[in-house]
Amino acid sequence: MSSTIAIDAMGGDFGPQVTIPASLKCLQANPDLKIIMVGNETILNKLLLEDLDKFKDRLLVKHASQQVEMDEKPQSALRSKKDSSMRVAINLVRDGEADACVSAGNTGALMAIARFVLKMIPGIDRPAILSALPSTFGHTHILDLGANVDCTAEHLYQFAIMGEEVVKAVEHIDSPKIGLLNIGEEDMKGNEQVKAAGKLLEASDLNYIGYVEGNSINAGSVKVDLIVTDGFVGNVALKSIEGAAKMIGSKLKDAFSRNIFTKLAGLVVYPVLKMFKESIDPRMYNGASFIGLRGLVVKSHGGADELAFETAIHLAEVEIEQNLTQKISDKVATTLKNREGV
Amino acid sequence: MSSTIAIDAMGGDFGPQVTIPASLKCLQANPDLKIIMVGNETILNKLLLEDLDKFKDRLLVKHASQQVEMDEKPQSALRSKKDSSMRVAINLVRDGEADACVSAGNTGALMAIARFVLKMIPGIDRPAILSALPSTFGHTHILDLGANVDCTAEHLYQFAIMGEEVVKAVEHIDSPKIGLLNIGEEDMKGNEQVKAAGKLLEASDLNYIGYVEGNSINAGSVKVDLIVTDGFVGNVALKSIEGAAKMIGSKLKDAFSRNIFTKLAGLVVYPVLKMFKESIDPRMYNGASFIGLRGLVVKSHGGADELAFETAIHLAEVEIEQNLTQKISDKVATTLKNREGV
Repeated sequence: MSSTIAIDAMGGDFGPQVTIPASLKCLQANPDLKIIMVGNETILNKLLLEDLDKFKDRLLVKHASQQVEMDEKPQSALRSKKDSSMRVAINLVRDGEADACVSAGNTGALMAIARFVLKMIPGIDRPAILSALPSTFGHTHILDLGANVDCTAEHLYQFAIMGEEVVKAVEHIDSPKIGLLNIGEEDMKGNEQVKAAGKLLEASDLNYIGYVEGNSINAGSVKVDLIVTDGFVGNVALKSIEGAAKMIGSKLKDAFSRNIFTKLAGLVVYPVLKMFKESIDPRMYNGASFIGLRGLVVKSHGGADELAFETAIHLAEVEIEQNLTQKISDKVATTLKNREGV
Repeated sequence: MSSTIAIDAMGGDFGPQVTIPASLKCLQANPDLKIIMVGNETILNKLLLEDLDKFKDRLLVKHASQQVEMDEKPQSALRSKKDSSMRVAINLVRDGEADACVSAGNTGALMAIARFVLKMIPGIDRPAILSALPSTFGHTHILDLGANVDCTAEHLYQFAIMGEEVVKAVEHIDSPKIGLLNIGEEDMKGNEQVKAAGKLLEASDLNYIGYVEGNSINAGSVKVDLIVTDGFVGNVALKSIEGAAKMIGSKLKDAFSRNIFTKLAGLVVYPVLKMFKESIDPRMYNGASFIGLRGLVVKSHGGADELAFETAIHLAEVEIEQNLTQKISDKVATTLKNREGV
């Protein structure tokens, strides 16, 4: 099956410097992939000269005269950047010219534009951001990671329904274990929204395992495959984990940099440390899915390098192949029907 | 200055097996320290036989016939365990027979009993739980870690006022940098409570540096000394960091356990890995302060071992020496007065 991905070529901290080589790697790897690089055509054509020739109709450039800045307010980007690389890439998804869009640009702007242009899946109130995280065993997926600061129980319930479809598609498992993030595993714990969401999930046909705590996020698939929470808590949890990993990495480096002996020891175990580093490499987890929209949008980390951006494109490829938007729409429609039938 | 600490000898996953040796170590280290071990006197007297003789009037046993279970509901512990080791230890603080209480027991029960017995400092609406965490440079303190699932802006503001006094006392710094945990550093980010709390903090005489994100928790004193958040978010952040550290530790162990060569490499660098491990050893950060109460209560992790429980006792010693309850009361009284004057 052939897939077409629109790349916001100008987005992210490094723009074409990263988006181009990553896109070329993906084209090389998947002969059924077509990529549309969206951005300033003068710049892109110059940089892509030989590659346009090499990949012919699998690599196109689509001009966009504007660019959303990394610190631009979402509303400003939405109103005054109608010809930005981000907007034009999303327009291609809306118009059926691309099956998904990948951007490393400003998260808030990307969400605002995607929501405005693509619209919501009927039955879903709010879009959410979902990502996978490294775990002791396998991966854990978590949503929402920052699209919604306040969520009702119903929103959390909808996140679970959508998130389940993502995990099924991406991890190829039948019935992902779903947990609700809370500050204890007992029934009495938590705020009102979480308690009410727990009741909705218990009554659903999802494989709901109950409340999980923050330390389950990295416990992985033995315990839980998908963790549901509001965007404030999810974002803080994600960034806390990033911060902890960074601190631990820096302490490990310190320990091996202390003196000539520890430095030599570091050289001896270099292959082992490299293997360890790769096992938690955040670049292998780059790419968050914007879900609940009538079209696929994958957000790459703004500071992504070539390998990280490649990972985000691969995620979009899997979501296209799995027909994820359709699966979520179908699931939501069935759930709504069952509810009305009650 | 002599200090007296009441130890809930029966609390925690291991009870006297941990609380006794840790207490004896602290008595050994500080000749001005007096400890009252609270719990079943038959058991305690038997275990302490020679030590009671050795430390004479610096080590006492106070009988308590009951024990709060680790999974007991706070309200049940409050109503039906009036002679529990936890309750009797807190009573000693209320009655001025001890300057602080240390317990590794059930957090919810400890908070409920402490609040009921000791009462709140006038001007403070809710108690909070504060702890230090390891950081790239120095420590970061964070509150609330789970006492309050929903917080108004005023609560967060009160947490900042109290937390500042703890950090000043424990870290010996004049004007700790205070940040408000949010999902972005820009003004427009966050929920209503956080935005309103930001305004209160800006108008205060505290050294408020603005919003900080989850990845600042382990950034440490270069960036921020004290992070304020509600108990739901704080608890999830804390446990997410614990989970990440555990996963990373297990991946590092895996890398060195792969085969005979990696195992040999691990032996070679054992001293370096040990130094690294010690630099992030959670036992060196054990002990959370319950603040806002008219008396000092330190909560140890339930699974604390001897070294970890010792750390919690040391924290209580510092808080006594610094006269923390008085300092918080004075600061709150001054702040209230200034506000009335406005």
